[in-house]
Amino acid sequence: MKTIKLTIEYDGTNFNGWQVQPKKITRTVQGTLKDTLKKIVKHPITVIGSGRTDSGVHALGQVAHFKTRSEMTPLEFQKALNAKLPTDIAIIKAEEAANTFHAQFNAKCKTYQYTILNRPFRCARNKSFCSYYPYKLNVSAMKKEAAFLVGKHDFKSFTAADPRNPSRGKNTTRTIKKLEIKKKMDYITIDITATGFLYKMVRNIVGTLIEIGSGKLHGQNIKNILKAEDRAVAGPTASAKGLCLLEVKY
Amino acid sequence: MKTIKLTIEYDGTNFNGWQVQPKKITRTVQGTLKDTLKKIVKHPITVIGSGRTDSGVHALGQVAHFKTRSEMTPLEFQKALNAKLPTDIAIIKAEEAANTFHAQFNAKCKTYQYTILNRPFRCARNKSFCSYYPYKLNVSAMKKEAAFLVGKHDFKSFTAADPRNPSRGKNTTRTIKKLEIKKKMDYITIDITATGFLYKMVRNIVGTLIEIGSGKLHGQNIKNILKAEDRAVAGPTASAKGLCLLEVKY
Repeated sequence: MKTIKLTIEYDGTNFNGWQVQPKKITRTVQGTLKDTLKKIVKHPITVIGSGRTDSGVHALGQVAHFKTRSEMTPLEFQKALNAKLPTDIAIIKAEEAANTFHAQFNAKCKTYQYTILNRPFRCARNKSFCSYYPYKLNVSAMKKEAAFLVGKHDFKSFTAADPRNPSRGKNTTRTIKKLEIKKKMDYITIDITATGFLYKMVRNIVGTLIEIGSGKLHGQNIKNILKAEDRAVAGPTASAKGLCLLEVKY
Repeated sequence: MKTIKLTIEYDGTNFNGWQVQPKKITRTVQGTLKDTLKKIVKHPITVIGSGRTDSGVHALGQVAHFKTRSEMTPLEFQKALNAKLPTDIAIIKAEEAANTFHAQFNAKCKTYQYTILNRPFRCARNKSFCSYYPYKLNVSAMKKEAAFLVGKHDFKSFTAADPRNPSRGKNTTRTIKKLEIKKKMDYITIDITATGFLYKMVRNIVGTLIEIGSGKLHGQNIKNILKAEDRAVAGPTASAKGLCLLEVKY
């Protein structure tokens, strides 16, 4: 048995997220990968990702692993998968990993990028890869407040109130190692690197930063929101299509 | 009557090009714009573009004009159109132009950008916005040869041999004012600014430059190809989805 580590790019638009949905016939990235691999190796297979991504979220560097008895080389796996996978998933890299490698448990940190189109009119070409905010955002106010998110904090206020939230009742302390906001033309990008992310954490942070940038978060700031440990105090969840998993580090 | 000039962005993936196809029920950008405008102004309308783009070709800055008796301001037109148009067309700008303004006849120059993904494996996220070439391209050879395209030349070798080609039998001399090739990560972009373009000229130039970059154009070079005035001597037509109309200048 050998362990193959895959780095995966996908356009999340037409997927119901990463994770296979039990008992539901939905199109997921994990399910599509598993079905395609099974046809290649001709034995049952388990594909384990670094973590789930929500419906509509994209990836340029998702990581997953699987174990196989196949004699195929990693390059042969990459070629076979890219030939057989639908055009909205591509294998960027395939390599043999240690037998102890685990895409989820060994992940040291992840970087997500969120893209906001900030101008008074929508776009057409990037429509699936950004969220659109028509009123002028104060980027320097967003940067100033975002700085308080960096470091080790309890991010309970930024995880979904949803009862299906897998983070509920668990430890909600995480460490944001880096948070960078850039504006280029009409696009604002927010890159966040953390040791781990809670369910919907990036989208809730972005929704809150948008409220800060638009001056809607009267009397509240990141420090207060973190302290409150209450989802209701933070801003809304930003839409999935602006989000992209850039990199997973091991 | 007033004349409104529109700057238009579109994702060409699901359009059968810019131009309305007579007697055919196909989805075109011009037809979609015309139908949407007609509902807004409630009188028959003609939309004239700076020129056609082929099926699958995108635009970030196509320009068109129309004449109307409506009292609506350009900003009201922009808002109404963006609200009613499908998500793969967006109006970037609307302005009142002189009554003599003509989007096609007054165009002084246009800039197209062509994007090639150059790595041994395909992508997923940009799949509709680039063409994919798996073998290493020699970018400096491409730049060196491309320099011979700049200036006033007869581009007959670079226009379609197709009998439906609207440039057939007409003057095929054009002036390329600027041609810039850049490589950033795995993407090569070719920006071409010219006083005008023949039918499929950019895609035929790109197809030829790809042959140069891959070393396939044995014994031929741009000088010879221009001199031949024969489509058969140049390279193949690069695929439409890598092409984008960036700007039209007046």
